[in-house]
Amino acid sequence: MLAPVHAGVPMESLVSDDAWVEAMLEVELALARAQARLGIIPVDAVGQITVAVREHTFDTRAIAVAARGAANPVVAFVQELQRVVAAVDPISAGYVHWGSTSQDVLDTATMLIAQRALSAIIADVESTIDSLTRLGELHRRTPIAARTLGMHAVPTTFGARVASWIQGLLDARDRLRVVRDSGLPVQLGGAAGTFASYIECAHRSGGPLADASPVEIQARLTADFAAELLLPTSPASWHSVRTPLADLAAALAITSGALGKFAVDVISQSRTEVMEVLEPAATGRGESSAMPQKRNPVLATMIRSASLQVPALASTIFGAMLAEDERSPGAWHAEWQPLRDCLLLLGGSAHTAAELADGLTADTERMSRTLASSGGQLVSERLSILLTPLLGRTEAKKALQTAAFEAAETGSSLADVLAGNAMVRNHLGIDEIHDLLRPENYLGVAPDLIDMVRNRA
Amino acid sequence: MLAPVHAGVPMESLVSDDAWVEAMLEVELALARAQARLGIIPVDAVGQITVAVREHTFDTRAIAVAARGAANPVVAFVQELQRVVAAVDPISAGYVHWGSTSQDVLDTATMLIAQRALSAIIADVESTIDSLTRLGELHRRTPIAARTLGMHAVPTTFGARVASWIQGLLDARDRLRVVRDSGLPVQLGGAAGTFASYIECAHRSGGPLADASPVEIQARLTADFAAELLLPTSPASWHSVRTPLADLAAALAITSGALGKFAVDVISQSRTEVMEVLEPAATGRGESSAMPQKRNPVLATMIRSASLQVPALASTIFGAMLAEDERSPGAWHAEWQPLRDCLLLLGGSAHTAAELADGLTADTERMSRTLASSGGQLVSERLSILLTPLLGRTEAKKALQTAAFEAAETGSSLADVLAGNAMVRNHLGIDEIHDLLRPENYLGVAPDLIDMVRNRA
Amino acid sequence: MLAPVHAGVPMESLVSDDAWVEAMLEVELALARAQARLGIIPVDAVGQITVAVREHTFDTRAIAVAARGAANPVVAFVQELQRVVAAVDPISAGYVHWGSTSQDVLDTATMLIAQRALSAIIADVESTIDSLTRLGELHRRTPIAARTLGMHAVPTTFGARVASWIQGLLDARDRLRVVRDSGLPVQLGGAAGTFASYIECAHRSGGPLADASPVEIQARLTADFAAELLLPTSPASWHSVRTPLADLAAALAITSGALGKFAVDVISQSRTEVMEVLEPAATGRGESSAMPQKRNPVLATMIRSASLQVPALASTIFGAMLAEDERSPGAWHAEWQPLRDCLLLLGGSAHTAAELADGLTADTERMSRTLASSGGQLVSERLSILLTPLLGRTEAKKALQTAAFEAAETGSSLADVLAGNAMVRNHLGIDEIHDLLRPENYLGVAPDLIDMVRNRA
Amino acid sequence: MLAPVHAGVPMESLVSDDAWVEAMLEVELALARAQARLGIIPVDAVGQITVAVREHTFDTRAIAVAARGAANPVVAFVQELQRVVAAVDPISAGYVHWGSTSQDVLDTATMLIAQRALSAIIADVESTIDSLTRLGELHRRTPIAARTLGMHAVPTTFGARVASWIQGLLDARDRLRVVRDSGLPVQLGGAAGTFASYIECAHRSGGPLADASPVEIQARLTADFAAELLLPTSPASWHSVRTPLADLAAALAITSGALGKFAVDVISQSRTEVMEVLEPAATGRGESSAMPQKRNPVLATMIRSASLQVPALASTIFGAMLAEDERSPGAWHAEWQPLRDCLLLLGGSAHTAAELADGLTADTERMSRTLASSGGQLVSERLSILLTPLLGRTEAKKALQTAAFEAAETGSSLADVLAGNAMVRNHLGIDEIHDLLRPENYLGVAPDLIDMVRNRA
Repeated sequence: MLAPVHAGVPMESLVSDDAWVEAMLEVELALARAQARLGIIPVDAVGQITVAVREHTFDTRAIAVAARGAANPVVAFVQELQRVVAAVDPISAGYVHWGSTSQDVLDTATMLIAQRALSAIIADVESTIDSLTRLGELHRRTPIAARTLGMHAVPTTFGARVASWIQGLLDARDRLRVVRDSGLPVQLGGAAGTFASYIECAHRSGGPLADASPVEIQARLTADFAAELLLPTSPASWHSVRTPLADLAAALAITSGALGKFAVDVISQSRTEVMEVLEPAATGRGESSAMPQKRNPVLATMIRSASLQVPALASTIFGAMLAEDERSPGAWHAEWQPLRDCLLLLGGSAHTAAELADGLTADTERMSRTLASSGGQLVSERLSILLTPLLGRTEAKKALQTAAFEAAETGSSLADVLAGNAMVRNHLGIDEIHDLLRPENYLGVAPDLIDMVRNRA
Repeated sequence: MLAPVHAGVPMESLVSDDAWVEAMLEVELALARAQARLGIIPVDAVGQITVAVREHTFDTRAIAVAARGAANPVVAFVQELQRVVAAVDPISAGYVHWGSTSQDVLDTATMLIAQRALSAIIADVESTIDSLTRLGELHRRTPIAARTLGMHAVPTTFGARVASWIQGLLDARDRLRVVRDSGLPVQLGGAAGTFASYIECAHRSGGPLADASPVEIQARLTADFAAELLLPTSPASWHSVRTPLADLAAALAITSGALGKFAVDVISQSRTEVMEVLEPAATGRGESSAMPQKRNPVLATMIRSASLQVPALASTIFGAMLAEDERSPGAWHAEWQPLRDCLLLLGGSAHTAAELADGLTADTERMSRTLASSGGQLVSERLSILLTPLLGRTEAKKALQTAAFEAAETGSSLADVLAGNAMVRNHLGIDEIHDLLRPENYLGVAPDLIDMVRNRA
Repeated sequence: MLAPVHAGVPMESLVSDDAWVEAMLEVELALARAQARLGIIPVDAVGQITVAVREHTFDTRAIAVAARGAANPVVAFVQELQRVVAAVDPISAGYVHWGSTSQDVLDTATMLIAQRALSAIIADVESTIDSLTRLGELHRRTPIAARTLGMHAVPTTFGARVASWIQGLLDARDRLRVVRDSGLPVQLGGAAGTFASYIECAHRSGGPLADASPVEIQARLTADFAAELLLPTSPASWHSVRTPLADLAAALAITSGALGKFAVDVISQSRTEVMEVLEPAATGRGESSAMPQKRNPVLATMIRSASLQVPALASTIFGAMLAEDERSPGAWHAEWQPLRDCLLLLGGSAHTAAELADGLTADTERMSRTLASSGGQLVSERLSILLTPLLGRTEAKKALQTAAFEAAETGSSLADVLAGNAMVRNHLGIDEIHDLLRPENYLGVAPDLIDMVRNRA
Repeated sequence: MLAPVHAGVPMESLVSDDAWVEAMLEVELALARAQARLGIIPVDAVGQITVAVREHTFDTRAIAVAARGAANPVVAFVQELQRVVAAVDPISAGYVHWGSTSQDVLDTATMLIAQRALSAIIADVESTIDSLTRLGELHRRTPIAARTLGMHAVPTTFGARVASWIQGLLDARDRLRVVRDSGLPVQLGGAAGTFASYIECAHRSGGPLADASPVEIQARLTADFAAELLLPTSPASWHSVRTPLADLAAALAITSGALGKFAVDVISQSRTEVMEVLEPAATGRGESSAMPQKRNPVLATMIRSASLQVPALASTIFGAMLAEDERSPGAWHAEWQPLRDCLLLLGGSAHTAAELADGLTADTERMSRTLASSGGQLVSERLSILLTPLLGRTEAKKALQTAAFEAAETGSSLADVLAGNAMVRNHLGIDEIHDLLRPENYLGVAPDLIDMVRNRA
């Protein structure tokens, strides 16, 4: 209710408490399967465990509340899981979470959830890019006023502005992909990252790894565990080396920035005095509870609100990298909720951006009216380049500032005023001046930017 | 599940979505009552509205999802409210939310919730202070090693350390009280803070305020509205002047710091190598999923995890003060969830701190063994003060550093080593040296700190 | 160079390294004077120390570099001070920093600097308020369009908008004053806050406090020390109870928000499409290196840039409240630079705001043209209030939205369109409709807000 | 003085105001050279400009103060540069900053500085890694107690702990390298990213590009400009697409975390009660101004203090990605100082880490004494794995917890207590129990971790 940006979007279920329980279960099953395949536990135990949980619904709320006893939810979850399995087969229950530790389960579950959440975000970012590409191609030559520090600067095109949104979103998508595809490794280290417990289990198993070296057991169990979950491995466990979380936070913060850039521009161009773009209409959307005439840019507002929250949350995750010893009392625990909040906010804002991009419309008439109202002022840079070699930099600047001032005061066009300046007329004809000051003649590569941005390697 | 610090604590229901809907309803009712009392709406309408909602359960989830249409939940909430009232009495439905605007309702509801949440936090902070006071009084003279930069420094007492926790918590409690009692004003301004809509309603009402001046109507309606809710007024509405939120964020951040300070000290003194304090035991608490011998400081861990998250959330609220124009597109919306998260985290950590303080035990035997193990080293500052006037600063420092080094190397006590230094023996007898180096003789005001801190005005 | 907001403003010297050395010297002298007054050190020593430093210029840079040896600059500073005094009188050199500890000196010096810095900020905030008061009074009745979510909402006045800036700045000023006047206590605790070293010095002095109780010595020395520096005392030392720093951070963050609010509104109203306000002109100010016609809102830009930086810095200071044990290895040290940066940014932005407020001009013609261009749309809320009881809420809303849409499409005024609606004409005459829709007739308390805000207790 | 972590380290000059002026000059010269090579300006002009600046020292302070006029330092810098060149050759002065805009110059200069700063940080990180590798290899089999949540957990080796530091630092180094080598592109876009001004200059030049297409001019000038500076290009200018800054912030935040992790562990192991590691000694280092016996872990303290500050600064840079329109009024400006502060803090902490790693010593005797003191408790996990299949999970856990408790109470070793338990003795012989509980027999892959971490691809 206090985060409309993600209310009801698919991300909410992807990162719910239930999703975390489900992911922890997947992790325990993957571990059991990997251990069974390597002969560390009986193959039959995996079957028993699988059967036992098939019909079982975990009491997520009870696990959450019981998490206070251990400062993490894994202990309570594992107890419920063992109970459930023990009801079916007490011996197999002994092989649940065999040799494992809370952090292995929770961190790996988090990676699983992050992977799915990133895929959802990437899909929405790509949908946004696709919609914006259509929009940008359509308007590659639609001239608008570029604004710097809020002031009309020089001409650009609406397509170029859209291209800048795409540019940021492509950057974001690339970074999200890298993290999703190779930055979310399984966690497997045992109580303190030494793998000793898993090795002990293997050695005691009487199985094929009973005499294997620690390194071999570590390598094989980690590989099989990771293969079960379709996650990468890492050179060693990362209990207190929190790079995966930090990479995730960085990619999310960058995505938040790219989406937020899109949003602030839509807000800027939606203002009553500008109104060059319009958010997609939908029944009841953008209405005010008080003012019947309003159509608020609510999608952009929600996206911006998310982007204002993410950087601070990311900073908490970066700060939690200062993890003392083999497991931190508190820093580890401080990552979880900020990560989930980031995923929710980005899930919501990427979803909202896709909707916004899909229906965003440009008011080209308004754009050209605004341009015309400048009376050529925003092409004065061009004259400055022309006149500087002819009049010298100081004279040229003075002539243009005086003319700009006079044009603004009298409401004349800059071309007309300059045409009245003898020094200028020595060098340029009246028609030439008018031509030079037409915004559509001073667009540079603006019409090409959509291609330049899209054609990146 | 990802925030064990507040899982299941009372704060969760105080700041739930349901609580917000309930508070918005209280606000609408308070507005209607105030308007009825001033003759702006019929008294009967209040009765009808009250009757209509009595049996009604709002669909919180639907309101939350519908909030995406307006970027805030009020529009959907008001629509449901009007529908419910209209079913009872269509005319009264017209007086629901009469002259009002979303922000008036949401901000005032937030103040109501904050007030209740602060009261809960204050109660837990006070309970923590009371328990710590008992502990501190008990141990006012129990000597321990003070640690600076992790190293034994000089002696202090456990009571003095406890006093430092109380000192911070009293600071926090005072700031929370000020905010709760006078910093959470009602919001009443109409669409853009001019009150024009409420005035229009009054002027059109035919009631006693039909001819009243704008200022009178503003003053009386605001006062009556505030009185209904037991909240203070403010000199003007504060739609885009977000001091109340910022004050709240500041008080919460300071409380987070005070609780966090308590937690990091408990963690520091709980270490296996120190073990001077022990968290209260409870069945299953502090257990590890892997290591049977462990008793983890889970309460302190959870408190610390909360305190690592709050400053960043507070910074988002401070940042949202940059609210453009009469209502910001996004900054306002970026406050809500960080505020709720802060309240949850602090509700949880204050609750946890009360539990921790209530059952925290000190191992005095361990404390004195640790002190003794220093062999007088941590009183060497005292000798330095004594010897400096006698030997000169350079000589004194050198003598003490040499002695400290020799004592550490040989495992002798500092007193014995110093007694072997002729220069020192010129000035001090052997017994005197031993006496001077007894930690319990160099406590300064440590035994008094618990009183000094408690006796603040 | 990378922070134009404070380049060359007076704050730069108030918080320079030299200022910190100077403040540390003041602290050492104050301590010596207080100790001399209480007979703990010879009165003559104070004279010798004073004479010795009178002509001495400390090597600030060397002290800064040497600070790496102790992780703080006090050790090197005290060594230089002792050397200087020893050159004059070796015995008096022994009484320099007598019984003291680095943190007492550095924290107290920080409080001194903060006090002066806050006074400078307060003066600029008050100057800003004064200028804005004149502006707000001048324009109390100048109607403008209120904007919410970037859209024209209802009418307000420019004076009311200015009043909202003042409201935030008065809040900030009040909080700064409280901190400056009572929130910056001296720090005096000795190595670990027990005061034992100062007490030992007193007991060994043979002076009138030689037999005094620890508490009496603590109380008297602290009081005299504080009196020397015109700073308040605190109930106990606060080495690891960092409320004073947190209060400071909170007040600065709130001031940053209030100044930033002013800036974002100036930026919003300075846009080329709006241009209702103009920053004060100055030679060369606001020029672009490329575009001769531009006059950028550079003062507001600089203020905003500062306000975007302060919340994160404040969060670091809040985070440093988690100070382990009697002195933290790192948290204490993490406060210093963020605090200085906050003071610099606020010193700069308050200074800049004073300049901006002093010369800000309102373009009333533009304001009224913008209002007129809305064709009455932004008073439609008023009609909604009128028509709802007459037509029912649904009908009224529909009639107004349809009319708003038609007016926008056809370029007619809302009044004309409504006058063509038979249902509306049943209730309202043409002139009445036009009158009702005049923005200047729907201002509510906007003209009074400047007084309401200024007359706060 | 308030940031000992970087006082006097080389980074201070790499990111000084002078360095920025120098970099801006390099950028202007590179632009002129590139334009000359393409025939856009006369080759002679480059010579004249080069000659003119050869002997000139820019007035950095004056430029910084003048930066207030434009909210950035480029305008004043270019004016000084033009003045200097004009004194030599007025015509060439006209070609200074030809067609350019402030942001092109400042952003590119920032990239140059960042590149050099990153190289310095990378060098120190690598030096740290090298030193730690030697340390880790030396102690690959030195058993220590692993600590989780501050409590002894299971055995590990000191080499394994060192490996975890290396693991984080390798992650950081890899990310720094990617950013340095491909993430810092030149900025070249002209007033609003359209390149129109540079194109106009080319078209007016009469040179070989006088008739070239906009895209060709953009491509060639950008390529030549980038080649001059040894920086990469980007698909388009990035005035308001701030990914390069965000990538930089992310890599720096991750490095900060990796260094901070190293520091908090050194602090943890340096505690008086632990003292397993010792910072390198240096004259005067780690001394307290009050306590002669102390040797504070000042290097680690300084590193930690930096790591506590960086995440918040990075969050400001992420937040500045919300850059409105073609250039933001304030967001762009809010990046500069936080970036410099990050570089300073990391320059300082990487430098400090290299020093710390180079001289860090391990007290192996203390390590083994600490391990022995646990009486086998920290190997009880192993027994749990053994006994669970034999006794069942519940019985095994109960037996071990009871034994752990009894051992702790009586001061006996866990092995002795367990040997007295008939149920256990049914399965294990006395010698076997003792063997199983020897820490050095339960190290898992700890001795191999240094290799596993170092051998990453």
